[in-house]
Amino acid sequence: MMKRIAIDMDDVLADTTLKIIAETNKRLGTAYTKEAISNPEIAKEFYQQYYPLRNFLWEKGFFRDLPVFDDAIDVVKKLQEQYEIFIVSAATEFPNSLAEKLEWLEEHFPFIGWTHTVFCGHKYMIKADYLIDDHEKNLVKFEGKGLLFDAPHNGHLQEYTRVYSWKEVEGLLLPEGTNV
Amino acid sequence: MMKRIAIDMDDVLADTTLKIIAETNKRLGTAYTKEAISNPEIAKEFYQQYYPLRNFLWEKGFFRDLPVFDDAIDVVKKLQEQYEIFIVSAATEFPNSLAEKLEWLEEHFPFIGWTHTVFCGHKYMIKADYLIDDHEKNLVKFEGKGLLFDAPHNGHLQEYTRVYSWKEVEGLLLPEGTNV
Repeated sequence: MMKRIAIDMDDVLADTTLKIIAETNKRLGTAYTKEAISNPEIAKEFYQQYYPLRNFLWEKGFFRDLPVFDDAIDVVKKLQEQYEIFIVSAATEFPNSLAEKLEWLEEHFPFIGWTHTVFCGHKYMIKADYLIDDHEKNLVKFEGKGLLFDAPHNGHLQEYTRVYSWKEVEGLLLPEGTNV
Repeated sequence: MMKRIAIDMDDVLADTTLKIIAETNKRLGTAYTKEAISNPEIAKEFYQQYYPLRNFLWEKGFFRDLPVFDDAIDVVKKLQEQYEIFIVSAATEFPNSLAEKLEWLEEHFPFIGWTHTVFCGHKYMIKADYLIDDHEKNLVKFEGKGLLFDAPHNGHLQEYTRVYSWKEVEGLLLPEGTNV
């Protein structure tokens, strides 16, 4: 039986942080960049300013046009040859995001399909061998092997296998399970 | 640790079949009732006529105003005192349904919340002790104890513990696990 990988969407398949920065800059007239907030001091300053504005996450359209991370499509397609892939997104907090996320997946990852798409809150009730996620709250209760997808908000975490790119995920998981 | 129950929405919490019958009657000028289609012959005839029309499931609004089954709210609330409850709905086939289902749950089951709401395709990757569902495809691969919620489309199934009402679910599962 194929092993199963659960893959998060925001900040794992989609560069949600890039859009969060753009929307924040637009509202505040600031000029933060993703490179700049890789510095923990600047990240702290950025997130303090972003947080009171984050209602824009609930607005129609926010999740529809997020950029896809480099190599995500190719690598997920290759992984699907050797694993069962589920997309698992903690999206039920954002009612408008749900249909948009389905459309986004259909546009960029049409080989996944609705049968293997999961929108939820908690993720600890998902049975999988691997979880690729950017949030500690999801990885900490996961019973399989977690891979932490690097993001400005998780730079402080030490306890997980950190991956910086989809090429790195490919190196770890293909051929199946060789290197992790 | 509390045991976990996964509960389906359509034809388990919500009387989806009642609305399917009403929408079909409206389009065909027929007068099917739920009582009538409890007869397998009439059910067969009804579903043959409904099936070519079922695009209405994808229309905006279909899932928003479904009636709630008798006692569902009270019994789920009581179950939540002794179990961890997740609502698990195979809804990703119906993009319009997602936000509507969240609103419906918020209206009738506000004590569940988005953290414990799951919209998916397959359900076999959900870890739970019990699954209450009306579809064999979900129960057959479930590793815990399945309860088949009686519905006109599942009358032929013999292999599962069948429940006819939420009062019966209460009798089986409360006090915790006593009778199942």
